Amino acid sequence: MPFEHNNAAQPTEWVMVDWGTSSLRGALLNAQGEVLQERAFAQGILSVPAGGFAKVFAERFGDWMSQSQRRCLISGMAGSRQGWQEATYCPCPAGLAELGQHLLWLQPGRIALVPGLSCVAQDALHTPDVMRGEEVQIWGALQLAKRDSATLVLPGTHSKWVQVKDARITGFNTYMTGEIFALLSQHSILAKTLDLNGAFEAEIFLQGIAHSQQSSRLLHSLFAVRTLGLFERMRAAALPSYLSGLLIGDELRSQAVSADAGPVMVIGSEALTLRYTLALQHLNIASQSFGAQATWAGLFALASKGFAAPSTDTP
Amino acid sequence: MPFEHNNAAQPTEWVMVDWGTSSLRGALLNAQGEVLQERAFAQGILSVPAGGFAKVFAERFGDWMSQSQRRCLISGMAGSRQGWQEATYCPCPAGLAELGQHLLWLQPGRIALVPGLSCVAQDALHTPDVMRGEEVQIWGALQLAKRDSATLVLPGTHSKWVQVKDARITGFNTYMTGEIFALLSQHSILAKTLDLNGAFEAEIFLQGIAHSQQSSRLLHSLFAVRTLGLFERMRAAALPSYLSGLLIGDELRSQAVSADAGPVMVIGSEALTLRYTLALQHLNIASQSFGAQATWAGLFALASKGFAAPSTDTP
Repeated sequence: MPFEHNNAAQPTEWVMVDWGTSSLRGALLNAQGEVLQERAFAQGILSVPAGGFAKVFAERFGDWMSQSQRRCLISGMAGSRQGWQEATYCPCPAGLAELGQHLLWLQPGRIALVPGLSCVAQDALHTPDVMRGEEVQIWGALQLAKRDSATLVLPGTHSKWVQVKDARITGFNTYMTGEIFALLSQHSILAKTLDLNGAFEAEIFLQGIAHSQQSSRLLHSLFAVRTLGLFERMRAAALPSYLSGLLIGDELRSQAVSADAGPVMVIGSEALTLRYTLALQHLNIASQSFGAQATWAGLFALASKGFAAPSTDTP
Repeated sequence: MPFEHNNAAQPTEWVMVDWGTSSLRGALLNAQGEVLQERAFAQGILSVPAGGFAKVFAERFGDWMSQSQRRCLISGMAGSRQGWQEATYCPCPAGLAELGQHLLWLQPGRIALVPGLSCVAQDALHTPDVMRGEEVQIWGALQLAKRDSATLVLPGTHSKWVQVKDARITGFNTYMTGEIFALLSQHSILAKTLDLNGAFEAEIFLQGIAHSQQSSRLLHSLFAVRTLGLFERMRAAALPSYLSGLLIGDELRSQAVSADAGPVMVIGSEALTLRYTLALQHLNIASQSFGAQATWAGLFALASKGFAAPSTDTP
């Protein structure tokens, strides 16, 4: 029984939404969590004017929501300060139960924003770290893999490395790998020598990975992309693969992945999970990959967990 | 006798030019190397159309060159592929003598481009590294400090760490520190929380330095600039100093500076040499700073070294 107040005889169907910075995706799930339909729009939160979220939501998913017994969970940046409403971060360690308690109800009992997670590093400044949207993918992938403890990585603009123990996220670290790749390959001096139209080359990528294992001097290693191009020691079309290897290699170098912890779970697009799988393999670390299905599985796991919706007169 | 063919009874005066990517500077030196006049223009090589270098040079320094006994040396990016003419890199180890042999004569015996230096790393790919313009500053600073062996750093868009032994540059490494600071503070997600108008704050900067000494995970540490701002744990105006500390700290972390080698010589603008001096002090490493005068001293040292100008019929 997903929502405690759901007294309808009919089992609940779900409209699940992942509203990120640059994209808006939705899925209609039946009461067993099977995906009936999917939709995707290039309508991330940055493209929505303040106060315009309810309107966009109604345009894109109003038809699905027209059946009154359907419920909706929305994860991702829609719950950020720049989103629909700010859903305060749920602090780690956290399981699905804590996440459920921190839902922000837009229509009590009917539509809720899933909060992100925060954690605090054991450093001098007690530096905070945050995620929004990845948390549901993590629990989704765990569900799909039937695991309750793992090291996970979610590559992307801001990669997340995550520790899960007994189905609770105990801590995580963000790496600016994807954003720095984009900045360097488009706007830095490296952009002058590399050709971004080059197809991904696994062998060159692994040379970058190997280089990063030998050196912790990333700010220096990166300049090799300039000089290898300048001296025509590497083709312009191969340089993006090399740069990608240097950056992902540096991210991996700083991970202490124990083989006892089981395969590392990699969650993301096919292009990115391929790169991380290759890199981990190169370092003799086993991995499992998960794609978009993790999002819907995670949102359904959250819905199925059972949590109290506030009564409709709660502010 | 600076140039072998200089048979004039009158001692030679010098027009010294440092033509970089974004600026053009010149100095008129007397035969003793004293600076008589200086000029600076925002007319770096990127602003000069192909084929337009001789014209800009004549406009800016034609009056100085109108006295026929004056000679001119031009260092910096003017000798790059995108510059006036490409002066092939002089390979390290190199002293002033080798540099003199690699001059590229634009007007034989009268105007020459100083080549940059190249070196090769001891890594699997034998990665090349390059500099243009810094080499004359290095020899200038050594001259001013009366030293012939040292570890030097030239902070900037692309910082250079340099080893000099017996007045010869034995090797160097480039770090993309300055360029990455600019990209992150202007174009990344960090730009949303930090205020670039904030004045430099030494205490905050040193917190960044300290953070980088404890962690070699730069791609992760950088994200702290986002979250410390997001949780209002650090003022927006202080964040640029913190980011600068993280990046310069990471650059310093990878240096093996021996105390026996004497103070590290820091060459650059006042704002940057201050930061490196503070950071090195924090790590108990002594340093000496040098500014723009190192350029003119280096070019004069090169001119005074004595090298053969080609005869005027050399192509």
